[in-house]
Amino acid sequence: MGKVYTGASMSIDGYVAGPQESGFEHLFAWYTNGDVELPTANPEMTFRATPQSAKHWREIVGMTGALVVGRHLWDFTNAWGGQHPMGVPTVVLTHTVPDGWKQEGEWFTFVTTGIEDAVAKARELAGEKGVGLNSGRMASQALDAGLVDEVWIDLVPVLLGAGTPFFSGLGTAPVLLDGPYDVVAGDRVTHLRYRVRR
Amino acid sequence: MGKVYTGASMSIDGYVAGPQESGFEHLFAWYTNGDVELPTANPEMTFRATPQSAKHWREIVGMTGALVVGRHLWDFTNAWGGQHPMGVPTVVLTHTVPDGWKQEGEWFTFVTTGIEDAVAKARELAGEKGVGLNSGRMASQALDAGLVDEVWIDLVPVLLGAGTPFFSGLGTAPVLLDGPYDVVAGDRVTHLRYRVRR
Repeated sequence: MGKVYTGASMSIDGYVAGPQESGFEHLFAWYTNGDVELPTANPEMTFRATPQSAKHWREIVGMTGALVVGRHLWDFTNAWGGQHPMGVPTVVLTHTVPDGWKQEGEWFTFVTTGIEDAVAKARELAGEKGVGLNSGRMASQALDAGLVDEVWIDLVPVLLGAGTPFFSGLGTAPVLLDGPYDVVAGDRVTHLRYRVRR
Repeated sequence: MGKVYTGASMSIDGYVAGPQESGFEHLFAWYTNGDVELPTANPEMTFRATPQSAKHWREIVGMTGALVVGRHLWDFTNAWGGQHPMGVPTVVLTHTVPDGWKQEGEWFTFVTTGIEDAVAKARELAGEKGVGLNSGRMASQALDAGLVDEVWIDLVPVLLGAGTPFFSGLGTAPVLLDGPYDVVAGDRVTHLRYRVRR
């Protein structure tokens, strides 16, 4: 069975979004500041990363069989136009199934009964591969529930000052990690992988 | 003239202290989890770091001619027993000179007129060497005032969940950094150095 990880591009002061959903031009610069083309599931969206970041991205994509995301991100991205750019089944943790959507659709499955059920559903969809989780409150809930094996941080050299923390509302802190067991220097990003200590 | 830097041991979620001044056993583990003896100015306190962290520490000490710290830290450490462990002149930014202390003493100088004056005083004391600044609100004030050349982070693999952020109350965010131009893997710490982009 694959690993469950949570990962995101994060500012040095710990934010995955600045105030009023700002700062993405800094947080996501590494997706587009290189020469290696990275096609996504969306034909209109191709990343162009450095060789280092491209290798990192391909490893993530290669090991990810399904995603769990929060409803806020799903709304904010307008359901990524119909499919997550990674092109894998995506479980949306939500209070209610959005109007006009089936509970279990082609690319999106809506789970309304909490993080444990959302991860279980994603594991089922992922088969032998791993499950990637959104940052934010959901990641903290999953960490609190002991569901997370690894934390992957794309550390971006910017201070956003305020915004949405990668980890918020952790109930079980301190949470010890081990590593980083992998450090990849990209351009305007350092990719770091940690294991959650049990 | 030396550089002005701010540096601290920081959790992955951006805290330099956990709730109620907790978490230091994690944040400062790298000072004592190796075999290389690092004497300090305090004869009763010797660090024992890994070779990697010891080299990093010696570089910091070697380039630091004076420090600027906040009154809270000075109080919390009980004036480090009389002298900062780095053994350099230390400027304490405070609202009032503490009872029983001279404004300009052997090891501590108290500045009551703001961060710019505190850094100027430390530069004077440091001579050709650099000035190290505390993390926390003071570091943010100094960043806002354009006084900081570098940010050094000893990134510790722990999530503290809450506490004292490295950077708090930044007025000028986003602040772009460059780097890391140095990444040193210690044991339970990754030493990262960034430059502040002007």
